[in-house]
Amino acid sequence: MLTRALLTIALLTHVQRERLEVVLVSPRNPLNIGAVARAMANFGFAHLIVAAPYAPHWREAKSAVGAPEVLAGAREFATLSEAVAGCTFIAGTGTVIHRKPDQPVVPLPDLPPILERELARGGRVALVFGPEKHGLTRGDLSWCNVLVEIPTDPQQPSMNLGQAAAVCLYELARPAIPFTELATLFTAPAEATPNSAGLDRLAELIEETMLAADYSPASMAAANRHDLRVLLRKLELSTLDTRRVMGLFRRILWRLKRPNSAK
Amino acid sequence: MLTRALLTIALLTHVQRERLEVVLVSPRNPLNIGAVARAMANFGFAHLIVAAPYAPHWREAKSAVGAPEVLAGAREFATLSEAVAGCTFIAGTGTVIHRKPDQPVVPLPDLPPILERELARGGRVALVFGPEKHGLTRGDLSWCNVLVEIPTDPQQPSMNLGQAAAVCLYELARPAIPFTELATLFTAPAEATPNSAGLDRLAELIEETMLAADYSPASMAAANRHDLRVLLRKLELSTLDTRRVMGLFRRILWRLKRPNSAK
Repeated sequence: MLTRALLTIALLTHVQRERLEVVLVSPRNPLNIGAVARAMANFGFAHLIVAAPYAPHWREAKSAVGAPEVLAGAREFATLSEAVAGCTFIAGTGTVIHRKPDQPVVPLPDLPPILERELARGGRVALVFGPEKHGLTRGDLSWCNVLVEIPTDPQQPSMNLGQAAAVCLYELARPAIPFTELATLFTAPAEATPNSAGLDRLAELIEETMLAADYSPASMAAANRHDLRVLLRKLELSTLDTRRVMGLFRRILWRLKRPNSAK
Repeated sequence: MLTRALLTIALLTHVQRERLEVVLVSPRNPLNIGAVARAMANFGFAHLIVAAPYAPHWREAKSAVGAPEVLAGAREFATLSEAVAGCTFIAGTGTVIHRKPDQPVVPLPDLPPILERELARGGRVALVFGPEKHGLTRGDLSWCNVLVEIPTDPQQPSMNLGQAAAVCLYELARPAIPFTELATLFTAPAEATPNSAGLDRLAELIEETMLAADYSPASMAAANRHDLRVLLRKLELSTLDTRRVMGLFRRILWRLKRPNSAK
């Protein structure tokens, strides 16, 4: 039986992120280079390498206003071979739609335990992204142990570089799924729930009732409305519950407005 | 015991993606709007809504060259309240670093089973992103059932809009983790593996041997070099294996170059 602990150790810890290099091969767009660096900072990765960059674009990316710190510390190599020379495991990224790769293809969700195994042996690993236009070439991939594929829609498989990097690094930094909570969720009965407009109608009715009952001064109306909206969504009312509560408040409101009518 | 099947049903199927709305509240940067639409296309989501957009930026995003189809079909509403009126469950996105939200906070990896439960009840769900500068306000969140948080580094929690959307949609479209493969990986013994430079040195030695042995014409050198690089990485040699193979080829090469020396 697989336990949650097993899955937890399958994911990269903060210390191990120190031994992962993000490698960009000939990136073209300074905005994309900046976006990769920002995603690295978001997910706690520090080591960026650029291989065979176009000098002007690379300079522009590094000197951009508000450029992430990761860029300042980035290392530069003339070739991919040199960029990954110190790594024991190299994962190239790309799509297999238009080619049959020489390397085993690993879907991104399966990558963390593979990198974990490599890191447990004491080495460094690299995650390599190709140029925006065509991605990693067959030649580039010959330095890679595996080709990592992000599972995308076959009709639109090609991702933006900054977004692809964000998704990969999120997957590597992602905590394990809390299985216990998952099991609990599935035992909950499925009841119909009201839509947002339904909850808004209920909130309006309650607000009208509060005003009719002189519950609080008009100056409090906006704050009350906010709190009420939050409360109604916290309650997780079913459609049936919502209808019952609406009926109750309609009755109360009717009473409040006609204090002298027959009971 | 939790089985793989349970996890699999916890993730959104293609049909259910049809009932998810991606909602952008007052997005500012046309490039970001385009990036969100592209990520939607990558992960198979079709329904984009913009609430209270800035008209000129929205027009620019829609008319951009190569704008994803998703943008053409996007719907526009004056308020978030109207944008999500037809949904039974609304998930706002953001970070809790600087505030204590009124809503329950759900880490992104826990979101798929929650949406799945809501969709099983037959409703529509919304995933809401705030403006680039400050994200969703406390007021915006009052229409939301939960606040979804992408687990990021506390020192750099704020993500780019296009990247945040890509990460969220990847998580919702992500296939289940193949547990069986995970278990197998962990039973594999951890042996030291050579780095890329080590494999390159081995490849050079083998190539030199091939030339010394007149194995193939010089015109084939580049193709052979490529195939050799791929092969050596497929073998998954340990450091010890690599050293043994190096020793063997050194010996062969020495023999090839000195055919008349004593055995």
